[in-house]
Amino acid sequence: MNFKIIAKDENSRARVGIINTAHGKVETPAFMPVGSQGTVKALTHRQILDLGVQILLSNTYHLFLRPGVEIIKKFGGLHSFISWKKPILTDSGGFQIYSLSPLTKVSEKGVSFNSHLDGTKFFLTPEKVIEIQVDFRSDIIMPLDYFLPYPSSFDSLKEAAKITSLWAKKSKNHFNSLSVESQQLWGIIQGGTYWELREKSIHDLLELNMDGYAIGGLCLGEPKSLMFEIVENSVSNLPEDKPRYLMGMGYIEDILQAVELGIDIFDCVIPTRNARTGTLFTSKGRIVIKNAKYKDDSKPIDENCDCYTCQNFSRAYLRHLYEREEITSAILNTIHNLHFYLDIFKKIRQSIRLNSFKKFKNDLLNNLKGE
Amino acid sequence: MNFKIIAKDENSRARVGIINTAHGKVETPAFMPVGSQGTVKALTHRQILDLGVQILLSNTYHLFLRPGVEIIKKFGGLHSFISWKKPILTDSGGFQIYSLSPLTKVSEKGVSFNSHLDGTKFFLTPEKVIEIQVDFRSDIIMPLDYFLPYPSSFDSLKEAAKITSLWAKKSKNHFNSLSVESQQLWGIIQGGTYWELREKSIHDLLELNMDGYAIGGLCLGEPKSLMFEIVENSVSNLPEDKPRYLMGMGYIEDILQAVELGIDIFDCVIPTRNARTGTLFTSKGRIVIKNAKYKDDSKPIDENCDCYTCQNFSRAYLRHLYEREEITSAILNTIHNLHFYLDIFKKIRQSIRLNSFKKFKNDLLNNLKGE
Repeated sequence: MNFKIIAKDENSRARVGIINTAHGKVETPAFMPVGSQGTVKALTHRQILDLGVQILLSNTYHLFLRPGVEIIKKFGGLHSFISWKKPILTDSGGFQIYSLSPLTKVSEKGVSFNSHLDGTKFFLTPEKVIEIQVDFRSDIIMPLDYFLPYPSSFDSLKEAAKITSLWAKKSKNHFNSLSVESQQLWGIIQGGTYWELREKSIHDLLELNMDGYAIGGLCLGEPKSLMFEIVENSVSNLPEDKPRYLMGMGYIEDILQAVELGIDIFDCVIPTRNARTGTLFTSKGRIVIKNAKYKDDSKPIDENCDCYTCQNFSRAYLRHLYEREEITSAILNTIHNLHFYLDIFKKIRQSIRLNSFKKFKNDLLNNLKGE
Repeated sequence: MNFKIIAKDENSRARVGIINTAHGKVETPAFMPVGSQGTVKALTHRQILDLGVQILLSNTYHLFLRPGVEIIKKFGGLHSFISWKKPILTDSGGFQIYSLSPLTKVSEKGVSFNSHLDGTKFFLTPEKVIEIQVDFRSDIIMPLDYFLPYPSSFDSLKEAAKITSLWAKKSKNHFNSLSVESQQLWGIIQGGTYWELREKSIHDLLELNMDGYAIGGLCLGEPKSLMFEIVENSVSNLPEDKPRYLMGMGYIEDILQAVELGIDIFDCVIPTRNARTGTLFTSKGRIVIKNAKYKDDSKPIDENCDCYTCQNFSRAYLRHLYEREEITSAILNTIHNLHFYLDIFKKIRQSIRLNSFKKFKNDLLNNLKGE
């Protein structure tokens, strides 16, 4: 069993589960920090382990371009190349191809694109994307998918979902033919904001019996009510005994809602990227550290926080480091923001076990409204 | 006693000493990493403590401009503002005024200059520079000095050394008038490459009985033989029972030579700056990590190194992080380079205690010639 549910909230669909991988367990609901290049930006592996990171999200597109598959393969996979011993999920790179690469062209066979780094032309098939991630020895492999920006027309979204389903089938067949015991292949649901398309996409994936199911193509600017409707309906149609991953959802307010609807795994650049640009999360709302009012503020970012940054440094010092563009600013801010996220996820899991998730969620939302 | 010699090498002037400060002891010979803005670039305080840093060099000019004396004073000093509990030496800012600021003008009263940040005009007297550092509660205060680039004429160097001596006297008098028990004031020897001027500068400072003596105005591109001649002669004229600081000397090869001549304290940006630009020190010479030959090199930077970086990461991964301009590259490289320096200083102290400094020095120099 790759996934086991160990607690269910009585008042919602929230659940606590364990994903088993060749590199250890991940207790869900879990937050995956983004380490596209094989590192969480501004932190060492030791620092993210100290923060309680259970699983790293890395990126097939970026690592395929540089350093390239051959080097990672020579090292025996991504864990060994980047010296990370815990689980890794690799994104297929689809998102980066469609959002970063020029001259992208999709056919049933695959996608051609030019590298955003140097313009080199590539053609990737869904089979090739599986092979790359098998070579990476990613614990959780995401298949190549095709998604469109919001808003897109029904017809184009229908075509994209159809290709995504076709590619998922090709991916699964190829993955099966490679007989990779220690890795998992999850599926990605597409279909934009049209439930009719989402339903078909889910139906196609369920036939393939994937190891987990990701909801892709959301969090792209569509209205939140529509997004949550899609999430809710999708979860209703997904099996209980498989993990569910909502791709790219980043704000705690939204994450709490999605957990309530039964989502197990999240990833987003928000805590780490915002840290670098000086927006810090606190139990009473966000603060922008460059604000002049913090210039002589001796308080920590968050008086309720027990991270290294809050236990040692004042807002005034953090503002000074930010203003001087010190690398240490990015480090200390990232430690805080990532701790903030991971600590909330720990409390989410605790509250589900105690059947108090809704209270926890409501209390937290009230606090976050802010200072 | 602010300084106590605890071991002397029988075959050279090298010695091991203890500098006592209000924030603890510094065992010499010691290397001070540079933390101009109140942080060593790319590392947290916890990381530099783990590396064994004993004392931090911070900078009056930078901190005077931003965040300004009032804020640091409000925090009760620099230690409290930056949350660093060990000793701090603050440079007077002279070096930055002469090398960074436009429109610098020196008179016997002080120096006027424009901020390199926003052009604001300032006038600093030697007395004011003492007051700032007293407010910072720096453990070791450096007085305002006046130095010129290499090469400069005898007459201009003579004038600069004369002003430096005058300012040292004003600094000492002002420092005494403030009755600061817990802080030390050291003197800075100037005089360029002319021994006649250096001798006079030393003579003037000795009359003031400073707590330590720094050799300034060297390591500016003058021939090494001339530089070491000045260092050797200077040390011969300095008292045994006061610490000696050679400002800005950075390469291990030179440091070993200077330790042999009786220097106790060093500072330089080289290990940290080179780390950020990808030049890494090893027991067999330097390596430039971006070099293509490291792209699939599974060895650590230095197989003889027990730092976190070398114990965990390959040259190939470090090259990848450098090439991708990841902040983690700066962090891991800085950990290594700073460890390399501090480890050598630890071994320098051990070898002096064991009367084997010359052998240690020669073995190390032979190895450093390199790979």
